Amino acid sequence: MASLEELLARGYSESRIRVRYAETDQMGVVYHANYLVWFEVGRVDFIRDMGLDYKAMEKEDNAMIAVIEASARYKAPARYDDEILVRTSLAGVRGTIVRFRYAVLRAATSASDEQLLCEGETTHIVVNREMKKRDMPQHYADRFRALLPRLTKLE
Amino acid sequence: MASLEELLARGYSESRIRVRYAETDQMGVVYHANYLVWFEVGRVDFIRDMGLDYKAMEKEDNAMIAVIEASARYKAPARYDDEILVRTSLAGVRGTIVRFRYAVLRAATSASDEQLLCEGETTHIVVNREMKKRDMPQHYADRFRALLPRLTKLE
Amino acid sequence: MASLEELLARGYSESRIRVRYAETDQMGVVYHANYLVWFEVGRVDFIRDMGLDYKAMEKEDNAMIAVIEASARYKAPARYDDEILVRTSLAGVRGTIVRFRYAVLRAATSASDEQLLCEGETTHIVVNREMKKRDMPQHYADRFRALLPRLTKLE
Amino acid sequence: MASLEELLARGYSESRIRVRYAETDQMGVVYHANYLVWFEVGRVDFIRDMGLDYKAMEKEDNAMIAVIEASARYKAPARYDDEILVRTSLAGVRGTIVRFRYAVLRAATSASDEQLLCEGETTHIVVNREMKKRDMPQHYADRFRALLPRLTKLE
Repeated sequence: MASLEELLARGYSESRIRVRYAETDQMGVVYHANYLVWFEVGRVDFIRDMGLDYKAMEKEDNAMIAVIEASARYKAPARYDDEILVRTSLAGVRGTIVRFRYAVLRAATSASDEQLLCEGETTHIVVNREMKKRDMPQHYADRFRALLPRLTKLE
Repeated sequence: MASLEELLARGYSESRIRVRYAETDQMGVVYHANYLVWFEVGRVDFIRDMGLDYKAMEKEDNAMIAVIEASARYKAPARYDDEILVRTSLAGVRGTIVRFRYAVLRAATSASDEQLLCEGETTHIVVNREMKKRDMPQHYADRFRALLPRLTKLE
Repeated sequence: MASLEELLARGYSESRIRVRYAETDQMGVVYHANYLVWFEVGRVDFIRDMGLDYKAMEKEDNAMIAVIEASARYKAPARYDDEILVRTSLAGVRGTIVRFRYAVLRAATSASDEQLLCEGETTHIVVNREMKKRDMPQHYADRFRALLPRLTKLE
Repeated sequence: MASLEELLARGYSESRIRVRYAETDQMGVVYHANYLVWFEVGRVDFIRDMGLDYKAMEKEDNAMIAVIEASARYKAPARYDDEILVRTSLAGVRGTIVRFRYAVLRAATSASDEQLLCEGETTHIVVNREMKKRDMPQHYADRFRALLPRLTKLE
């Protein structure tokens, strides 16, 4: 977690995750679907760094950010107990559609540099509790749009 | 899935699950927390076999069966692609408390007999949407109580 | 599970999954990462329907099908206890790269037709236990290539 | 993560976890099986705080800590985005059997005190890669036994 200033200075938010035993599979590496869960951890931290509260948005504004598209490209496997960095940035805001982009890395250690493990993107629409499409609450939308040009694209 | 007659004839319900790759960990066996998910699969099938609809109970009766205690004893590991049987029975119904008991087995194959992998028990109370304790809707409670003496204990 | 004849007659394999409580999230629908787990269930059944044994391929041939890319487009939410169909087909086999395509549907009920919930694609390479790229064992590769033109693309 | 001194001063290790959206279910609270995953996060941090490296124990000593029993008692629900503390201590070391005990709490906020959400216990044996029972490597066993009387029981 960081402040909006840090988010803008870096151009992306950064989350730290320690790989759990439960996240590995019998190939001895992290099961690929878990990266989508890590993207979500990144997304939530990104929104928090923006100074917004996603929980309140769901509860008080009846507005949920639903995933309509997700993709991931796996470069190298993450392993049990690795320290993982998830970097999250905005890829686009257009009408009611928001796109996030992610880079998942193994953090640098005394023995090795940081290493890119996975890149991905998710696309979202805003829905209400009945899962019907709706506009993003105005103060959230304003914040997203203001932020977009000031961020790194993580391309 | 079976009928109430089959449930009574057998003394327990029986669910079939094929072990998913996602359920294994780097030890090469099923990660232990997944057995609690399988217990839930067994519990839902048990309730369905009773002729009740848990989904309707949540939606229409505002009554959810919340877990207040769970335990599992692991006897032998399940492995990827194993065919698993979850046998579920009632262990007790007292006031607003319901207890289920489970036996998880590897199904018999041409090469081997069925094998007990895990035994467990879960204890539940009924809550409403606000997670406040409430009585079980009468027609569900009646059904549970009528069934209890006619089932195998799976001890 | 079906035979190779059925696979060819249909043009894709078909897996049935009952949505687990564990797979829902607080939005009241299936958490989006679980579709990747369901794709994997579909992929394993597809390979089984081909008459191949993925478990043996891992164990005896030291060849694992690792995911290098995954994507999903979500059309409508799956809900607890829904009966889900996962249709899986090959999208391509080129050199050491295999691509699968998936359609996830809610099965038809007495009250409603089947409904498309999610489409997706995964791309794979074959690796050995040390996660190094290798060729697919010849008899698997032959089978995949022979099958490709005889299947539906699920586009 | 902390040092052995801190572990001894406190009597238990303490892990911090932010509840993920993926960990909630449609009841709007954390799905109960996830507490076993959190226990494992606590256990790994505990072993790390002891100055031991579980990863090395698996890889270099061919010794894995397998779960043979797990139990949890749920007191109050955890919710999305809650900050969770997992306190882990040893409950016993006897022959080749190790028992851990856990307390899962919601961290104190400006608005509320910390609150106990779940208590649990897991029992373990040491196995080799073939899942056969073996002794704990001597330097690990010595460390566990030396530590036991100096810890809080978390009862």
